[in-house]
Amino acid sequence: MSMHKDTLCIGIFGLGTVGSGILSILSQNEEVIFQRLGKRVYVKTICIRDLSKRRLFNLEGVRVTDDPSVILNDPEIDIVVEVMGGENPAFSYIKAALENKKYVVTANKEVISKHKQLFFECAKQNGVDVYFEASVGGGIPIIRSLKVGYAANKIQSFFGILNGTTNYILTKMDEEKQAFESVLAEAQALGFAELDPTMDVSGMDVAYKLTILAAAAFKINVGIDDIFYEGIENIHLEDILYARQFGYVIKLLAIGKRLSDQKVCLKVHPTMVPIGHPLAAVRNEFNALFVNGNALGESMLYGKGAGSLPTASAVVADIIDIGFDTALQNSRRNLEIEFLQENLVPVDQLSSKFYLRLSVADMVGVLEKVTAVFGRHKVSVANLIQRENDRGLAELVIVTHEVAESNMNHALGELRNLFEVQSIQAVIRVGLDE
Amino acid sequence: MSMHKDTLCIGIFGLGTVGSGILSILSQNEEVIFQRLGKRVYVKTICIRDLSKRRLFNLEGVRVTDDPSVILNDPEIDIVVEVMGGENPAFSYIKAALENKKYVVTANKEVISKHKQLFFECAKQNGVDVYFEASVGGGIPIIRSLKVGYAANKIQSFFGILNGTTNYILTKMDEEKQAFESVLAEAQALGFAELDPTMDVSGMDVAYKLTILAAAAFKINVGIDDIFYEGIENIHLEDILYARQFGYVIKLLAIGKRLSDQKVCLKVHPTMVPIGHPLAAVRNEFNALFVNGNALGESMLYGKGAGSLPTASAVVADIIDIGFDTALQNSRRNLEIEFLQENLVPVDQLSSKFYLRLSVADMVGVLEKVTAVFGRHKVSVANLIQRENDRGLAELVIVTHEVAESNMNHALGELRNLFEVQSIQAVIRVGLDE
Repeated sequence: MSMHKDTLCIGIFGLGTVGSGILSILSQNEEVIFQRLGKRVYVKTICIRDLSKRRLFNLEGVRVTDDPSVILNDPEIDIVVEVMGGENPAFSYIKAALENKKYVVTANKEVISKHKQLFFECAKQNGVDVYFEASVGGGIPIIRSLKVGYAANKIQSFFGILNGTTNYILTKMDEEKQAFESVLAEAQALGFAELDPTMDVSGMDVAYKLTILAAAAFKINVGIDDIFYEGIENIHLEDILYARQFGYVIKLLAIGKRLSDQKVCLKVHPTMVPIGHPLAAVRNEFNALFVNGNALGESMLYGKGAGSLPTASAVVADIIDIGFDTALQNSRRNLEIEFLQENLVPVDQLSSKFYLRLSVADMVGVLEKVTAVFGRHKVSVANLIQRENDRGLAELVIVTHEVAESNMNHALGELRNLFEVQSIQAVIRVGLDE
Repeated sequence: MSMHKDTLCIGIFGLGTVGSGILSILSQNEEVIFQRLGKRVYVKTICIRDLSKRRLFNLEGVRVTDDPSVILNDPEIDIVVEVMGGENPAFSYIKAALENKKYVVTANKEVISKHKQLFFECAKQNGVDVYFEASVGGGIPIIRSLKVGYAANKIQSFFGILNGTTNYILTKMDEEKQAFESVLAEAQALGFAELDPTMDVSGMDVAYKLTILAAAAFKINVGIDDIFYEGIENIHLEDILYARQFGYVIKLLAIGKRLSDQKVCLKVHPTMVPIGHPLAAVRNEFNALFVNGNALGESMLYGKGAGSLPTASAVVADIIDIGFDTALQNSRRNLEIEFLQENLVPVDQLSSKFYLRLSVADMVGVLEKVTAVFGRHKVSVANLIQRENDRGLAELVIVTHEVAESNMNHALGELRNLFEVQSIQAVIRVGLDE
């Protein structure tokens, strides 16, 4: 790596939403950044896929290429920024950059989730590092806080709202009493949701982010296939209204918990969050991470988790952080990561409180049959509402005490087979202190 | 500075609440910290004032002394931690440590507020640095976020709840409908408030913290005498109840704003915060900093702002952060601080919305006289409640539109001289978007 005492030389892969946000920040905040860092940040080269695409940006003084080697083999470039997204070719560019002893900054959750161990080892071997603040929670300094700000703590648990699209949908359903489908359509029309929203609403986006948090908070190396995740596709307006009635707001949470010294649970699912909890107040497209540390107690980081400028804000923060160190050519934070062997506890060995909404025949003895099933599987009822509807059916809404997931699964299986139970409309976990 | 590749050697000044919290964290979380940092943290020496005081801690393997030079002149000690509090002798110990090329970590708001420029210069000359995360907001990574996490941003404004004692008092008054004096007495009995609470309730504690935030966010060097601060001594239960009625919660805020490129406003005062704002939900002893950055938008950091372990959590985070760098013997973040010349705008040149509560004679024509005074000084009324009480007096509660502070002062002066106005019970600024 060539050293320029007063200039940081950057190459960027990708000039989409985040890439153009980076250029915008570096230009608009040039003086502020120089005051903080004591160096200039100079974008030398940008590599894009299709040179024929017109760019809104004034790229004077920047070389634009479609040949990755122009960046990867340039000895003058100190830091390679990858903001293309997706696993490939991002993976090979990051790997090659590290092998060429360049620091890497990426906003790419998928490639970090899948290849973090290889990247960390490769960085260590080459005396550089890979930074990925923007991959989780956009402009919120989540990774940096877990690695440094909270580093004195044993992290006991964390709960994250890490997907702006789904939080926006849940907020609108709650506040405007609209159905999932109509809010989603509106969000798509406004550009807040992708035309194919699967990645967001299925919980997969959050699952990628959770694996990255698990590495930063617990130093364990897992992929999304190792963890349980569930999306918000099956959240109905009725459940949001009942949740309010019981004192909860439904949020899609990434949850990480130490169960004991060698056991950890990681999961993503819609959760009924008590209305007084700070996470319940995180509205619309905002993200937040709520952390319990054994020294600091409860803490929360809140802000915009996506969008051009918030995400670019985190990328440029990583560039600045590296800039404090580049004169040094020395190992930094990730280099110390030796992943731990922790036992990930499968979700069916955990326990939780549950909210259930059943559609049942409106006839004598139904409640007895349902509670008999519960009795056989140690499901204890905390709250129950029974309400007739206009189709000769009744709605049975139940909040349970804490129960083993496996017991609940058996109970649900039996309920499905009961003649009197027409359908199980909703199964949602309740509370943060399972 | 002597270098031990795999050990960080520490000397600590002070073994009170924070000092013992540090020892507790270093012992309890030894393995977690080693995993994150890749080095052991070894407390070699602790300097205390009175060697005859008994200590609860098992200090085996630690040298305890009352001679500061044992730490300051020990070539093996890499980092000096100052957790005594107060300006002296902390000032001379920190200065001597920096001159002896030792990194310094301090939790001391007063000494940093007063001597930051000298410390930063001294650190730069000696190739080390001074870290002070614990001086503002306890365990919340506020300083680190302003210096690195948000470093890509021009900070437009910030609003901090930075004193746990006053936030606890205001929360209890609000939620339990108790008077200031009775909540304060209860807090003192529980140990949440000092027997002499002046530093907290007068706003001075927050003012010290605001000068530190001003350095980190705006790079300007001011002392508490340069800024306007007002405490919560004159907040009455009635005003808290009226605030709710108008949709606000009263919080003691540290406020920093860029007014234009060369102008900044810094002030501390009770503020009516809209109920939907994230700061309104910060209850009891919790602290928070709400930040507007020109790239990241709105962001908030939340957690415990005081107490042995939360404060020690920030001190140990600073030790770890330095530990990532000590092999390097290189300048870090503060070294780039060249304070800027910004014009601090005095509070009487600002404008604000105001809440007023007047005790007036219950007679015809009072309202006309009051509004005539308002008219002469361009004070425009947004909300007004007039209510009789049982002593032949009426209460006049007013929320104004935005008005120049100087105009409000003139209006208040004239109101005081009106025969019909018995007293001005409350003057509280309203809202965050002045």
